[in-house]
Amino acid sequence: MSTLSRMDIERVAPQSDEVLIDVLYCGVCHSDLHQVRNDWSNTVYPCIPGHEVVGRVTEAGSGVTKFKVGDIVGVGCMIDSCGKCSSCTEGEEQYCEGPVSWTATYNGYMKPDGSGYNTFGGYSTDIVVKESFVLSIPDSLDVKAVAPIMCAGVTTYSPLRHWQVKEGSKVGVAGLGGLGHMAVKLAKAMGAEVTVLTTDKDKREAAEALGAHQVILSDDKEAMTANELSLDLILITIPDKFDVNPYVSLLKRDGSIVTVGLLGPYKSPTNNMEIAMHRRSVSGSLIGSIKETQEVLDFCAEHSILPDVEMIPMQDINKAYERMMDEEVRFRYVIDMDSLKNEN
Amino acid sequence: MSTLSRMDIERVAPQSDEVLIDVLYCGVCHSDLHQVRNDWSNTVYPCIPGHEVVGRVTEAGSGVTKFKVGDIVGVGCMIDSCGKCSSCTEGEEQYCEGPVSWTATYNGYMKPDGSGYNTFGGYSTDIVVKESFVLSIPDSLDVKAVAPIMCAGVTTYSPLRHWQVKEGSKVGVAGLGGLGHMAVKLAKAMGAEVTVLTTDKDKREAAEALGAHQVILSDDKEAMTANELSLDLILITIPDKFDVNPYVSLLKRDGSIVTVGLLGPYKSPTNNMEIAMHRRSVSGSLIGSIKETQEVLDFCAEHSILPDVEMIPMQDINKAYERMMDEEVRFRYVIDMDSLKNEN
Repeated sequence: MSTLSRMDIERVAPQSDEVLIDVLYCGVCHSDLHQVRNDWSNTVYPCIPGHEVVGRVTEAGSGVTKFKVGDIVGVGCMIDSCGKCSSCTEGEEQYCEGPVSWTATYNGYMKPDGSGYNTFGGYSTDIVVKESFVLSIPDSLDVKAVAPIMCAGVTTYSPLRHWQVKEGSKVGVAGLGGLGHMAVKLAKAMGAEVTVLTTDKDKREAAEALGAHQVILSDDKEAMTANELSLDLILITIPDKFDVNPYVSLLKRDGSIVTVGLLGPYKSPTNNMEIAMHRRSVSGSLIGSIKETQEVLDFCAEHSILPDVEMIPMQDINKAYERMMDEEVRFRYVIDMDSLKNEN
Repeated sequence: MSTLSRMDIERVAPQSDEVLIDVLYCGVCHSDLHQVRNDWSNTVYPCIPGHEVVGRVTEAGSGVTKFKVGDIVGVGCMIDSCGKCSSCTEGEEQYCEGPVSWTATYNGYMKPDGSGYNTFGGYSTDIVVKESFVLSIPDSLDVKAVAPIMCAGVTTYSPLRHWQVKEGSKVGVAGLGGLGHMAVKLAKAMGAEVTVLTTDKDKREAAEALGAHQVILSDDKEAMTANELSLDLILITIPDKFDVNPYVSLLKRDGSIVTVGLLGPYKSPTNNMEIAMHRRSVSGSLIGSIKETQEVLDFCAEHSILPDVEMIPMQDINKAYERMMDEEVRFRYVIDMDSLKNEN
């Protein structure tokens, strides 16, 4: 498997609508691992991952109005989009229908015709980003822990809002890693009763500590049967192939499964008998808009929510990936970028 | 394969809330074929199919208020439900969550504990049904053609309404048989622009005659690519296993596929990449409520819509099934029940 090693790059100077950001912390997302291993067959090497970025503005282009030098800011999964399609004009640029969709913070092309250069992400001392894709970090959020909100936070917040989770909603969360633990915190703060679904009985305690109303082991057929027709929405954060069918029966009439972790085919064909019998839906959702990313940051500030993180130095990244592959990691690694700067 | 043959049964006398109906016509649904062949592994033999029933009331129980002797009425897929669960109390008894779900017009059990007797459907000279599950047939609808509205009509009408098809909606209809041709007529009457998707190029003309805006051959990759992101809703009426993935790309952001024909697993696993990339959904829908069945009958009367039918005598039913299995049938067979009565 591919491993990460030090590489020297030069960032271009910020243009009039861009800011230069001194990266302080960067979250380690499961997507980073997928991309580094070329699991989606689209990795351009060399690849510098990182799309959960927190840093300080050190330079602002002449036309920048939202930010000034010294501001603590965030960058998520996107740094540009076509700006013209219906998704972009309706503030849903994560569903950009432009010729090459939105520009990813890393492994993304800058130009809509696909001829631009590869983008390099936040596992880096600094990054240059257009201000309209930069987030304000509320003062009350601990800068050391806030990074994962930029991806894990908004990826779960966006579907919770879109599927209208509210006081009393019954929400299932399958998978309790970086995304899953944020989903539990956010859904609870929206007033939902949260059921955690996991195959790992060792995660029961962690789920309960997060405030889960109940924990179901998804391979416990008796417990699954006892909970048929009980949930309005299930967010599935499992990052690898799985069988969606056992989860379908847990949905109430008109309930939805929203898969946010897996970007590929399920393990087996969905059974439309179970879907049609109660007009259920199997859907998917991709990160969230810039507007929603700001919203979830503000929501977390208001509800005192932070991701659970474990800080690592840049030098430990390969070891961290190995642990993630072994599914040992419950929550989120965050890289302290001082470790990279001090190597210089 | 199982074949149908004549059988003599005696209907019980109608109770106070029931009517006895002299069956005039009965539609031949693809489900009848599935049930007779035991495709769903739940057929109780002997089996008398038929859930698209039109007839005349010949006797009414003492408590019946909606109907009187001589009324032309219809019976669809359901003749009872628990009446107590949230689906039933909210007028969606097709999603009844009672111990044994709703009672099917044929191959259904009368008692909620499953201990009742097998129900016999509309391929019959008469039938006894509770008035709350009996429909009024508007005078203006030709009694010879109206039967398929009771299943094919409401099965497509219900999702078109639930997914809020309106003036200008872009609706796809995959499969152009009994359900598909009704879906085209109903969606058009709701103001939608309808795209018919078929693997059978011989159905192009029929689709155009029904008023389809365009016809796409679903195995024409070029045409499918050219129509990506173009449809709000696709109703899939294909009655057998198929691959749902090629249809997913045709959906706009937030678009839905609703499979109404297949009651079993798809041919291959759904790819969540295509789903999540535009927050699409793959859903299913089951027939429709009694309220919606009356609505679609009234809607058809208002818009002068009737199913396209081919009348057959009861004696030709096995031949008709063979033709349906060969996918030769575009629209709906209807049995003229005089053919059975005159055999007596």
